[in-house]
Amino acid sequence: MKLETPIIIVNFKTYSEATGKKAVELAKKAAKASKETGVNIVVAPQFADIARVAEAVEIPVFAQHIDAVCPGAFTGHVLAESVKEAGAVGTLINHSERQLKLADVDAVIRHANERGLMTCVCTSNPAISAAVAYLHPDIISIEPPELIGTGIAVSKAQPEAVTNTIKLVRKVNNHAVILCGAGISHGEDVSVALKLGTQGVLVASGIVKAKDPYTVLREFADATKL
Amino acid sequence: MKLETPIIIVNFKTYSEATGKKAVELAKKAAKASKETGVNIVVAPQFADIARVAEAVEIPVFAQHIDAVCPGAFTGHVLAESVKEAGAVGTLINHSERQLKLADVDAVIRHANERGLMTCVCTSNPAISAAVAYLHPDIISIEPPELIGTGIAVSKAQPEAVTNTIKLVRKVNNHAVILCGAGISHGEDVSVALKLGTQGVLVASGIVKAKDPYTVLREFADATKL
Amino acid sequence: MKLETPIIIVNFKTYSEATGKKAVELAKKAAKASKETGVNIVVAPQFADIARVAEAVEIPVFAQHIDAVCPGAFTGHVLAESVKEAGAVGTLINHSERQLKLADVDAVIRHANERGLMTCVCTSNPAISAAVAYLHPDIISIEPPELIGTGIAVSKAQPEAVTNTIKLVRKVNNHAVILCGAGISHGEDVSVALKLGTQGVLVASGIVKAKDPYTVLREFADATKL
Amino acid sequence: MKLETPIIIVNFKTYSEATGKKAVELAKKAAKASKETGVNIVVAPQFADIARVAEAVEIPVFAQHIDAVCPGAFTGHVLAESVKEAGAVGTLINHSERQLKLADVDAVIRHANERGLMTCVCTSNPAISAAVAYLHPDIISIEPPELIGTGIAVSKAQPEAVTNTIKLVRKVNNHAVILCGAGISHGEDVSVALKLGTQGVLVASGIVKAKDPYTVLREFADATKL
Repeated sequence: MKLETPIIIVNFKTYSEATGKKAVELAKKAAKASKETGVNIVVAPQFADIARVAEAVEIPVFAQHIDAVCPGAFTGHVLAESVKEAGAVGTLINHSERQLKLADVDAVIRHANERGLMTCVCTSNPAISAAVAYLHPDIISIEPPELIGTGIAVSKAQPEAVTNTIKLVRKVNNHAVILCGAGISHGEDVSVALKLGTQGVLVASGIVKAKDPYTVLREFADATKL
Repeated sequence: MKLETPIIIVNFKTYSEATGKKAVELAKKAAKASKETGVNIVVAPQFADIARVAEAVEIPVFAQHIDAVCPGAFTGHVLAESVKEAGAVGTLINHSERQLKLADVDAVIRHANERGLMTCVCTSNPAISAAVAYLHPDIISIEPPELIGTGIAVSKAQPEAVTNTIKLVRKVNNHAVILCGAGISHGEDVSVALKLGTQGVLVASGIVKAKDPYTVLREFADATKL
Repeated sequence: MKLETPIIIVNFKTYSEATGKKAVELAKKAAKASKETGVNIVVAPQFADIARVAEAVEIPVFAQHIDAVCPGAFTGHVLAESVKEAGAVGTLINHSERQLKLADVDAVIRHANERGLMTCVCTSNPAISAAVAYLHPDIISIEPPELIGTGIAVSKAQPEAVTNTIKLVRKVNNHAVILCGAGISHGEDVSVALKLGTQGVLVASGIVKAKDPYTVLREFADATKL
Repeated sequence: MKLETPIIIVNFKTYSEATGKKAVELAKKAAKASKETGVNIVVAPQFADIARVAEAVEIPVFAQHIDAVCPGAFTGHVLAESVKEAGAVGTLINHSERQLKLADVDAVIRHANERGLMTCVCTSNPAISAAVAYLHPDIISIEPPELIGTGIAVSKAQPEAVTNTIKLVRKVNNHAVILCGAGISHGEDVSVALKLGTQGVLVASGIVKAKDPYTVLREFADATKL
């Protein structure tokens, strides 16, 4: 599978505004905004919500994490096969709130790839992004942890983190989609991100905690066309 | 909520025989065995399977783990609220394959309790069982890790681990249901476990990897009546 | 080995004021205060400083942590035998900044005990303290994490956390020394801690980051006699 | 600081044969073999042994791990400044027995570099080695985990893992010293490793658990000259 860019990935985290029934409602708003704008919007709900979200919407659904395990005796772990069968077509991994050991980043990308699951690896700076590029994920998203949840957009506050990521990644990897995230709150943050050379954004609280998530999603999606 | 004893909890782990559609099928077999025998059988599928399993069967569904987090910015974590809304009425925690920090065992029991979710804490020896008894979980299951998956039943190989657990736990906690697990493969392992004073068993591969899980479950359920 | 109470344990953490040569200097001040007052003062320097500190002073030296490993192939781990041979007579474990899995708290206490190393287990609330009491450590120190490093003393801000710890622990364990920590900054915090029923305190920044650690240590030691 | 190649790094792990006084004795044997052959032999003892080993020998001493922390409130962690002041000139990191999160591999390399401490990052396959090369460590050591401690040498059993590592790393990094490890037991394993293009080896049980470590070390050092 290959996603058309630009892409907006909405990370539902464990926000109560995006848990259970509310996860389904939010995903429907994302699907509506995607359909109306033609922009690829991906939703990443919690594990237990994947199945109901995937049933309710036709836009791509990602898990928020999977573990570096194969089928077997791994109580309480998140198996690639399981989230896939529930309807996920990809997964975030190594988010700053759920970091992986280096060897597990490699193992999870391989496992996911063999099982037809796309991977979006979150990274915290350009050097780590370049390192990850060598492990051939489908998507790399640079997210300076100090900006996450602040409303201060990485694309405006740290444009050089974004452009250096693109420069370093492209030296070794021409295929990976490159996103940026952290603090994305306005349409302008999105359009600036694309002008810097990214192919989309990874967002969370900017959408999930918005008073009117649909309107903000529309604004973000429209901004990818500016 | 309070479960009637004896209880048989079936931990699906991340076995391929108990993932996705197969999780639902296995849960239905458990529900059938429970209905026919009147014995309380609980199923613990993977996170992404909870919703479909809970929809398909009326027996209690447990998660295999939850994290010590509240709603918020915790990408990739497992929230009590989320598994509950998906249909879980309880959760395993601290399985030897997914151990928790001591302070998190306490925090998870409290969170789960406040949210109406039962907790079954796995422990590896009598002293740890007694320690956990002080944290007021609903269920304590003693599982010597060295026997897990071996087919050598704790109730027969280490009866004193079971009886010492009961003795120590009951000094401080009269309410917690006490189970044992690890290696339970035959009806006799179950009946011995109950004769030792437990109120049921926690099983995994003995059921999940059996050629005919329904028949083994029936055997286990019937054995609780001997 | 058995330490006479009251005890003041000084946790050097990884503060630069207590690293390398400065660890030795700080330990000498603690030794001086201990000698002059007759109060048992224990120092807990970083692993790499244990040998030089233990050579320089005669007061007891503790490690800040040990891992639940036996001699073998465990690169980068902290072995009980190693810190003991370097001169430690005990160890802190499960500090809120270096928490252990529940089963490892049990394993480390056993290992340490078999090797003649005392254990001081840090706990964050009365229930966890009682749970730990069942695992038979030599010392239990209650430290509400939210007060650590604040200068707001647990003995004054949360006296009931201290008294409830003592009450619950003493139901099951008459031997363990009970300390409290977090925010201890003044002699009065120490004397209040002892009046609440503890047998001493666990301190860190209050000493290590004091302008004149010797004077504050003297104040703390003298306060144990009030 | 820059080490002359070829290099033999001896990882003492937490073996009892290399703990405390025995760590000092083993380091002296390594120093003797280094002096006699002119080959750079580095020893990596446990944290608590660094100071005494560094005092006893003039060959370079490495820590086995450091944590991604700065001076501060990090009880039980291993600080770069601390191992350096104890006499270490470098550190292993990310050994398969003590793996780091991806972001911490980056952070530790930076911290160590700023503090004048060399880093030897252990990796488990060529792709991870290339990823790490982007983070600019001083040394990269490829160690397939499945061969560690087996006596089956990586240089003979998986020569392509070694040559692919060199090929991929050199595309992006001309400075890092490249070693290989796992199963190195005979002089021939060392000479083959160098012929494959490495600049030395990382060894552990092959030396530490040898009946006569000095003789084996001489054999290894001599083999670098073949």
